[in-house]
Amino acid sequence: MSEYTLSVTCADQKGIIAAVTHCIASGEGNILNLSQHTAVDVNVFMLKADFSVADDFVRSDFEKAFSEVAGKFKMEWKLFDKALRPRVAILASKTSHCLYELLLKHEDGELACEFPVIISNHSDLAGVATQFHVPFFQVDTGKGKVAYEADIQTILEDYQVDTVVMARYMQILSPEFTRRWAYQVINIHHGFLPAFMGAKPYHQAWHRGVKIIGATAHFANENLDQGPIISQDTIRVSDTCSIERFVQLGKDVERRVLFEALKLFLDRNVFVYGGRTFILR
Amino acid sequence: MSEYTLSVTCADQKGIIAAVTHCIASGEGNILNLSQHTAVDVNVFMLKADFSVADDFVRSDFEKAFSEVAGKFKMEWKLFDKALRPRVAILASKTSHCLYELLLKHEDGELACEFPVIISNHSDLAGVATQFHVPFFQVDTGKGKVAYEADIQTILEDYQVDTVVMARYMQILSPEFTRRWAYQVINIHHGFLPAFMGAKPYHQAWHRGVKIIGATAHFANENLDQGPIISQDTIRVSDTCSIERFVQLGKDVERRVLFEALKLFLDRNVFVYGGRTFILR
Amino acid sequence: MSEYTLSVTCADQKGIIAAVTHCIASGEGNILNLSQHTAVDVNVFMLKADFSVADDFVRSDFEKAFSEVAGKFKMEWKLFDKALRPRVAILASKTSHCLYELLLKHEDGELACEFPVIISNHSDLAGVATQFHVPFFQVDTGKGKVAYEADIQTILEDYQVDTVVMARYMQILSPEFTRRWAYQVINIHHGFLPAFMGAKPYHQAWHRGVKIIGATAHFANENLDQGPIISQDTIRVSDTCSIERFVQLGKDVERRVLFEALKLFLDRNVFVYGGRTFILR
Amino acid sequence: MSEYTLSVTCADQKGIIAAVTHCIASGEGNILNLSQHTAVDVNVFMLKADFSVADDFVRSDFEKAFSEVAGKFKMEWKLFDKALRPRVAILASKTSHCLYELLLKHEDGELACEFPVIISNHSDLAGVATQFHVPFFQVDTGKGKVAYEADIQTILEDYQVDTVVMARYMQILSPEFTRRWAYQVINIHHGFLPAFMGAKPYHQAWHRGVKIIGATAHFANENLDQGPIISQDTIRVSDTCSIERFVQLGKDVERRVLFEALKLFLDRNVFVYGGRTFILR
Repeated sequence: MSEYTLSVTCADQKGIIAAVTHCIASGEGNILNLSQHTAVDVNVFMLKADFSVADDFVRSDFEKAFSEVAGKFKMEWKLFDKALRPRVAILASKTSHCLYELLLKHEDGELACEFPVIISNHSDLAGVATQFHVPFFQVDTGKGKVAYEADIQTILEDYQVDTVVMARYMQILSPEFTRRWAYQVINIHHGFLPAFMGAKPYHQAWHRGVKIIGATAHFANENLDQGPIISQDTIRVSDTCSIERFVQLGKDVERRVLFEALKLFLDRNVFVYGGRTFILR
Repeated sequence: MSEYTLSVTCADQKGIIAAVTHCIASGEGNILNLSQHTAVDVNVFMLKADFSVADDFVRSDFEKAFSEVAGKFKMEWKLFDKALRPRVAILASKTSHCLYELLLKHEDGELACEFPVIISNHSDLAGVATQFHVPFFQVDTGKGKVAYEADIQTILEDYQVDTVVMARYMQILSPEFTRRWAYQVINIHHGFLPAFMGAKPYHQAWHRGVKIIGATAHFANENLDQGPIISQDTIRVSDTCSIERFVQLGKDVERRVLFEALKLFLDRNVFVYGGRTFILR
Repeated sequence: MSEYTLSVTCADQKGIIAAVTHCIASGEGNILNLSQHTAVDVNVFMLKADFSVADDFVRSDFEKAFSEVAGKFKMEWKLFDKALRPRVAILASKTSHCLYELLLKHEDGELACEFPVIISNHSDLAGVATQFHVPFFQVDTGKGKVAYEADIQTILEDYQVDTVVMARYMQILSPEFTRRWAYQVINIHHGFLPAFMGAKPYHQAWHRGVKIIGATAHFANENLDQGPIISQDTIRVSDTCSIERFVQLGKDVERRVLFEALKLFLDRNVFVYGGRTFILR
Repeated sequence: MSEYTLSVTCADQKGIIAAVTHCIASGEGNILNLSQHTAVDVNVFMLKADFSVADDFVRSDFEKAFSEVAGKFKMEWKLFDKALRPRVAILASKTSHCLYELLLKHEDGELACEFPVIISNHSDLAGVATQFHVPFFQVDTGKGKVAYEADIQTILEDYQVDTVVMARYMQILSPEFTRRWAYQVINIHHGFLPAFMGAKPYHQAWHRGVKIIGATAHFANENLDQGPIISQDTIRVSDTCSIERFVQLGKDVERRVLFEALKLFLDRNVFVYGGRTFILR
């Protein structure tokens, strides 16, 4: 027995689900979970189906059969073998809470990926990497962005990385880098976007006197803090809190939101259309 | 154009979704939303599909066609025409917050039902009924449970009621009544079940020193406060709150939870199996 | 027995609480609740004390005694007799959810004020006012802002109003009006400020793809949606929600937040300093 | 400059706060934060004051002066020097999430204590202890409860432990042990008490069909899962979750609640009266 996830997007029309599920059933697949949504205002249909197959399943046969369905409906589609786990690199700087969260949840079996490498612009977190037996590389930002991003790119290629998670990595990636890794880099911002973009969001929040703080995980793109949002959460704060307390309280939200975003991404729940995401659960 | 909801339950097996959606597509239906879940431990498959059809759709033809599919898979199934809105009676006593919530949400178009009648064991809420132009009946509990429940039953029949909502109705329904209206009576309990069953749950909660209070909407059955749970919510409370403050804070939770339960029920999201519910969203 | 609330602000220094509470004790007051906070970054001390006194308490004697303490510490202070309930006018337009919330909570004894008058630029809510026996006035915005705000001002004076609540009143108040009523006008914005200022915040939120929506109650000032925030709350939303569903879900947050803000204000929990509020609970 | 916390409980009466704060001011203390509450139904007054003093502060002088005040009002009171950090032992078994949470938050400076020793009935977590440089002891439960609890007691004494935290320690402590350490042992239960006492609370919750799961931190006493509750939290769950998913989701709640309970305890916010706690913030 093995399991696959099929992801489909196309213009909305009659009979899509029937055609897709008939094709899966014809391939002797058993659907374990199916989610679908039509974004009415843009007439876009999205579908995600998890299905199991017997050992005699031939992927290429299924893909050939499904291509015909896809052609008829003008679908964009992807098929994921759940046994092939994405290889995710973690970028970090000095603070450890997001890094620990990902490594601990991974250890507990909650993240369907590998973490082959951790890259940082500081040495502080090398010990954490060692504890979890993950290779650690420190890049030298002193040599200029073009040069050290080339170093990062080399490491990512060496370790055959598919996806990058910025676990409070405190450097801005270049437009060249984010374009090359479009919709494959997940960042965590310590503010409730679109409020409090840019630097020191907790300071901004405290001075504005907001009663709730939050964090936002999003795909990094060439516009700082403006990529498609994947996950967000908030907590109520008291006006008797200092900014330092905001920072502490915010850490719990950040790690939770970043973990949730990566999990949704790995479980293939994230669809992107028209500059925003649609999460199908 | 009209819309239908199809609700299906059966033992899990291969090809159910394909068969169901093929049948809908064959009837020229366009699936707007499909939710499905398999409760693995009991091997029960549940599916809910909303679909739209053109004006030449013939319900009896579809039902005949679907019966064959259903027979093959040994399904239990129901088809709901969304234009036929359930007729829901509200039972209330003296407090108005749940009653107002239902009537106001209904006025705002959030509840797909009619409220043909309000029944109470007190006269206090007659004015609210008048404001919203709903017939109001006061039943006399002094005549004994058998007699006044017979009065209620007569009113429900006169007004062709399908479903009953207890909006803080402070009388216990007889086993005869709840059996007759099995899975058609929704009650709100002002405690986070299964904690704090029975009377005065806020008093129980305060004395136990809990830090969170809640409310629970459930189907009424012959075991007090033990019917299948439909919806729950909680809020954090401070130890500096009095019991009276617990009661006030709890009202917001109660009205929210009761409304949510009724909405889930009317939208056909509630499946019952093995003494518990499964909510498919 | 009667109850008073004393509200104090001054530069932080040693012995303030001792001096204040000694003065209350000397006046035979019994402190029921005391909250205090020092905003360290601006060195501002704030204190709120609720105390009860016997029937022979003479307010002017206490005020004279406290003036000496206040002079020594350079305090700004106010003394509120809880028996004198503020007179709050409600401004509304067409939607009823915030108006109902205030009237229902008031009926339940949760708001320590009077609602002597409801003013609207439409006639839609006249019936609600009648139900709750509150005088209702419709102002004519067609005659220009200066003229109809003069009408509002006249009504507020006729009804001896202290405070104004904008319960989804869909007109922008003039700077003259908000300055005249500085820190006495509470507005509800249907967005999580400072994100989504201005018109149609739910539309903005949906298109941005946020996963959480919120509402913000704040003092109205001459800068639209930028007055000091009093209360905020948020709820998680699904990407499968339409904008219309955002609007429905948001209503629950709006009414909750507006109610909370008015309650905090009436209970004298709201301190304003440096363009932001500090809520002492 | 050093800081102290004064904790006071007595029958409610006039002038307590004035007397306490006057005494602190007389000792040249500057109150940084004061919280107080009167549990009206039992007429118990509770007060917590944080204050700073200059280097010439003599603790014994203050205690002598305060004893007179305390005698007059029949107070129970404690004075804590914030520089003397409690020594907290952690008991754990096999699962690491609560242990990591405490160690990481401690590393981040959020817990005002020392962790001098970790004790377990298994060897699994020895590596975590090593990573954080905390001595680790494995006790042998095979020798019987009396014997291995004596071993634990010896370790606690050797390391001069004040307080014990059970971080998912899966053994029931004897009544002798909990009585000896009354109100000094904090446990985390993976259910929303008082619902789901005893073993396998997530299994109980799933089968009951609840829509919300939670966790509860409480003082351990001789009645299993019935000690005074310190902290609780909940999360909404979907009916499409398996029990295994409940367990995963619950871990986040457990670690958050246990951390909060320990923090409240260390910050001297926890008062116990009449078998329940009162948290003064």
